[in-house]
Amino acid sequence: MRLSRVLMRGAVLMAAVLLAAGFATVAEEGMWTFDNPPAKLLQQKYGFVPTQTWLDHVRLSSVRLNDGGSGSFVSADGLLLTNHHVARGQLQKNSTPEHDYIANGFYAATEDQEIKSPDLEVNVFVSMENVTARVQSAAKPGMADEPALKARQAAIAAIESESLKATGLRSDVISLYKGGEYWLYRYKKYTDVRIVFAPEEQAAFFGGDPDNFTYPRYDLDMALFRVYENGKPLHTENYLKWNAKGPAENELVFVSGNPGSTQREDTVAQLNLERDVIEPNVLKLLRHRLAVLKEFGAQGPEQARKAETQVFYLENSLKAFEGRLQGLLDPSTFSKKVNDEKEFRAKVAANPDWQKEYGGAWAVIEGATKKDGELFPKDLFRRTDSPLFGSALSLVQYAAEVQKPDGERLPGYHDSQLESLRFSVVSPAPVYLDMETARMAGSFQGALDELGPNDAWVKAALDGKSPVDAARAYLGGSKLADPAVRRQLLEGGEKAITASTDPLILLARRLDPVLRAMLKQNDEEVKSVETAAGEKLGKARFLVYGKDAYPDATFTLRLSYGTATGYPMNGTKAPYKTTYYGLYDRSASFDNQSPFNLPQRYVEGRSKLDLSTPLDFVATVDIIGGNSGSPVINRNGELVGLIFDGNIESLAGDFVYDGAQNRAVAVDSAAMIEALRKLYGAEKLADELQR
Amino acid sequence: MRLSRVLMRGAVLMAAVLLAAGFATVAEEGMWTFDNPPAKLLQQKYGFVPTQTWLDHVRLSSVRLNDGGSGSFVSADGLLLTNHHVARGQLQKNSTPEHDYIANGFYAATEDQEIKSPDLEVNVFVSMENVTARVQSAAKPGMADEPALKARQAAIAAIESESLKATGLRSDVISLYKGGEYWLYRYKKYTDVRIVFAPEEQAAFFGGDPDNFTYPRYDLDMALFRVYENGKPLHTENYLKWNAKGPAENELVFVSGNPGSTQREDTVAQLNLERDVIEPNVLKLLRHRLAVLKEFGAQGPEQARKAETQVFYLENSLKAFEGRLQGLLDPSTFSKKVNDEKEFRAKVAANPDWQKEYGGAWAVIEGATKKDGELFPKDLFRRTDSPLFGSALSLVQYAAEVQKPDGERLPGYHDSQLESLRFSVVSPAPVYLDMETARMAGSFQGALDELGPNDAWVKAALDGKSPVDAARAYLGGSKLADPAVRRQLLEGGEKAITASTDPLILLARRLDPVLRAMLKQNDEEVKSVETAAGEKLGKARFLVYGKDAYPDATFTLRLSYGTATGYPMNGTKAPYKTTYYGLYDRSASFDNQSPFNLPQRYVEGRSKLDLSTPLDFVATVDIIGGNSGSPVINRNGELVGLIFDGNIESLAGDFVYDGAQNRAVAVDSAAMIEALRKLYGAEKLADELQR
Repeated sequence: MRLSRVLMRGAVLMAAVLLAAGFATVAEEGMWTFDNPPAKLLQQKYGFVPTQTWLDHVRLSSVRLNDGGSGSFVSADGLLLTNHHVARGQLQKNSTPEHDYIANGFYAATEDQEIKSPDLEVNVFVSMENVTARVQSAAKPGMADEPALKARQAAIAAIESESLKATGLRSDVISLYKGGEYWLYRYKKYTDVRIVFAPEEQAAFFGGDPDNFTYPRYDLDMALFRVYENGKPLHTENYLKWNAKGPAENELVFVSGNPGSTQREDTVAQLNLERDVIEPNVLKLLRHRLAVLKEFGAQGPEQARKAETQVFYLENSLKAFEGRLQGLLDPSTFSKKVNDEKEFRAKVAANPDWQKEYGGAWAVIEGATKKDGELFPKDLFRRTDSPLFGSALSLVQYAAEVQKPDGERLPGYHDSQLESLRFSVVSPAPVYLDMETARMAGSFQGALDELGPNDAWVKAALDGKSPVDAARAYLGGSKLADPAVRRQLLEGGEKAITASTDPLILLARRLDPVLRAMLKQNDEEVKSVETAAGEKLGKARFLVYGKDAYPDATFTLRLSYGTATGYPMNGTKAPYKTTYYGLYDRSASFDNQSPFNLPQRYVEGRSKLDLSTPLDFVATVDIIGGNSGSPVINRNGELVGLIFDGNIESLAGDFVYDGAQNRAVAVDSAAMIEALRKLYGAEKLADELQR
Repeated sequence: MRLSRVLMRGAVLMAAVLLAAGFATVAEEGMWTFDNPPAKLLQQKYGFVPTQTWLDHVRLSSVRLNDGGSGSFVSADGLLLTNHHVARGQLQKNSTPEHDYIANGFYAATEDQEIKSPDLEVNVFVSMENVTARVQSAAKPGMADEPALKARQAAIAAIESESLKATGLRSDVISLYKGGEYWLYRYKKYTDVRIVFAPEEQAAFFGGDPDNFTYPRYDLDMALFRVYENGKPLHTENYLKWNAKGPAENELVFVSGNPGSTQREDTVAQLNLERDVIEPNVLKLLRHRLAVLKEFGAQGPEQARKAETQVFYLENSLKAFEGRLQGLLDPSTFSKKVNDEKEFRAKVAANPDWQKEYGGAWAVIEGATKKDGELFPKDLFRRTDSPLFGSALSLVQYAAEVQKPDGERLPGYHDSQLESLRFSVVSPAPVYLDMETARMAGSFQGALDELGPNDAWVKAALDGKSPVDAARAYLGGSKLADPAVRRQLLEGGEKAITASTDPLILLARRLDPVLRAMLKQNDEEVKSVETAAGEKLGKARFLVYGKDAYPDATFTLRLSYGTATGYPMNGTKAPYKTTYYGLYDRSASFDNQSPFNLPQRYVEGRSKLDLSTPLDFVATVDIIGGNSGSPVINRNGELVGLIFDGNIESLAGDFVYDGAQNRAVAVDSAAMIEALRKLYGAEKLADELQR
């Protein structure tokens, strides 16, 4: 399935590059911002242009989840539809050895049976404001790159802070077109989110890792939450009506969701870095972490249960990064990027004024990528693989950062972000100390192997011990597993942190300066250089191509469009949809062996199903990790499907879109109703969806 | 499905090259002769070695069909199993506008309902004899290449003629290991072959051209004939028992059939010629012929019915040749061939005696391929696309050739081949003069476009007319559509031919000298040179690699082995088998649109089927065009499947075998019984198969 944003954030944040290169929009390509929908393209090709009312309704019916995915409201009483694999973390956190909601699924037939998600936050994108002028003018002419970056960051923090105070809404300034535009996005936030329905994982993720990121598929990758406000189900007009027919072949459809990040505007120098340094190192890290988790899970069934969510995300990431690297290694993909850049550069060079102002930016970026190539592996392996340590580090940094003016703080600690940060730090979700120990020791060992014993971070992390001994000492001696202890430290401020002798806090205090120094070096030598040069290319791009293009993805709401259409595959055609027949075929074809085994409910309930019901379908909509759980919507604004993946051919989509074979994979709206009514006895829920 | 030998013969006969290069045998690779089964490999890997009794029984239960495929006896009363696509020509020849056995299928519930195939010949390979010494010694030391080739050909003709006289059996001398060995193969021949059962083509060839040469598949590509002898069903002990369970995953299986031709021993120079000259020109010819046929078929339903068999074969060839070319263009495939040759040449060069004797052969072959590259396109387009003209040419050449000593005749006119030739020339199969005219005119136009109006063949063919006028005049004025007229000319000898004023005979007499001159030039400048050099490489190959290898395919009986095993495909796994569920899924996935529509019988009979019954499966056995209809056999010598195709990854198999992804595709024995009993009401037939 599609990569959840959550992992992406962990693995490639440091690699996020902030630059622009021009490219022409083709076919159904594009993740469009809601202020600039592709009206001309839609009119030309489909004779349909969404009205402002349509756009507003779709936007307000769409949500972003802090677990890294997207979703949509699908009833007047706050029902929220997303993927099972997005909900998986919350299901896991509510599961126990006695109640395994991942293996067995979950259904609350009445509201009082609904169970609370410990730390899920839902964001609704309620308003937007163009703040380009204010941010861009913060950096005065003649400023050096680094002070200019700081000045812009300060302006952004001020805008966010003012907005928060004025509206009480979460307020984020985002950079689009690599600094060509800045927008203030405001979100209404919900944190009382309860689990209503999830199928067995074996139905949601039928085919497991082998079938992940492929098509044809037969997955019911759905889950339903209910959003509460003031202890009552949210009543809202902003939800998508359910169309239980699914899309017809070649029908126009839209996707409204939050694609995490793309790098389609990267320069060729940056893509070279991706291919030669970033992807190979990320793959090394992922393989190492997966091996550690699998070793832990092999100790017994309870360990396996604890490890499986992380194993699942790591396998997903591994397949995604392998696909990204394959895409970069594909000569036809790469030569397209080379040609696009050649064209863009030629157009800039053809105008002497442009050439003087912007023509040097490519070389500047190429220089910065060389530095980035040196820093990246160090940045990557200096990471402690332990969620509880993550909380400790947040506590230490929080205490220091809140004392500074907003504009001078580390990323993640601005006023507008603090409420979400606090919600996450004091999460009551269970902590598995045995697994944390294995993961932390594994990441220490990995850093030791890659960076050597004299690395500043390694020295601070190990403190003279072996990786295993160090991890045991920190986690064995810590009291932070108790959320109340974390809350005390959060509320106690710097004094409490300084006084704490908790070994995880002490570790965080030793690592914090190393991490800050690393961030500073990266800001000075890579980020500020690339931002300044990137802004030049962003401006040149507007001059050359206008605004008939969309910006790279930023985990903010975007609208994509396309049709439910098959594609050429492996010498034949992949159909635009699959059916329940295919689920039973694929299971029987593998003699019902895992991961192609069927839940017992499907074996026993087979005769109840209309096997010709569409199960999954593909569409030419342009999506990427973070779009998981996005609704697929028809012209009437009705829900006809639920995005859960891209096909294997889409994995190069981070860098380039190929409309011939790139497909998004979705659960059909018909399949969800068929399963709820015929297999899960969830007539009441289906009635609410179809009301 | 797998390419039938019949087309291969038409399209690339001229390209057949007779040389050897060394390569090591890997995995389940190999099409082994029955005198040299891979006992050591089988013992090592499976602990199973077929006994001589097992081998003899399998060989005598296997058949070769003159329509270009393979088959096997499957009952004591002469039932013969092959593919629907191999039987298609005979079904077509018995069909009329009123009885379309291709669209509707056919079932003879009793023997008197069985219908005769007009011109199907069945060969059973009854004995073999090594005649290497006699053939090789025919060419005396010091002879030039061309006289040596003639001397060998004369020796071969003499052996065949002697054998025919002594035994009355069809007797063919075949060259293996590119002249490293020569064997006399004797066949028992049956020509009274009656159609017993065929499903609707839409069941046999579900998925049509898109699914052809791919997997997963859902085809019931089967047909049953009954062989008669002296007007009665053949009673035989040599038939395969039916095992209705199909193979288990990873079970060892064998295939006994007649692979048409491979070029795995070709030198790199010869592969370059294939890639740069042969494949592109053959593709051009096939596309042109297909366009002509489709234009004819578009005139009306009756024209479409007449054209569809040829369209079917052309589309099949086109996809196969596209795959071959892709294989040659794949750098990893090609570099494997380059490395194999480099290794072989190094081993020869390491021994000064070998180097002196054989080391020059590669350069000689490279020289000959240059000449071949000039001649090939001319040879290819100098072909008249008209089966009736083919008979006329055979009559003209037959009358001249039978007057010569056997050893000096054109290929195809040796004593041992005459009975089959006569059977074919006087075939009572229907002649469609309207379609013959369209095809002939199309091939004249193609030759005119490619070779120009001054080409000797074009001049003789058009005789001053336009392509369409010429074709109309020849076919419109000819009486040869009547088999009795052909028989008269056959029996009347040279006198009758010389006296004939039939325009097709006159045309054949004009073209015959051009074709003979072309053959002679090819013999002198390409074939004799390549044969002599190839024989050197064949000998070198034995010296370097021994006889632990198998010879290139020659449309003679071979034994392959492997397991029923899936493979990595498009990011996930292809299962080792499919089920009837998948047939209904794929049909519903395309909204039952052609070519994914189901015969009415399948729509109505769905509930009668056990949908989890295995339908098709893949195996790692090494097969190629001509293997269509081959039985898949288990250790016990029982039939568990029926080869009908290779997957898309197997299309490079003409040049190189890749065990990781190359798979043969077969109908499961279970699916055939399930369909016969539950859908076709053919309980009696199923009983006979399972007796």
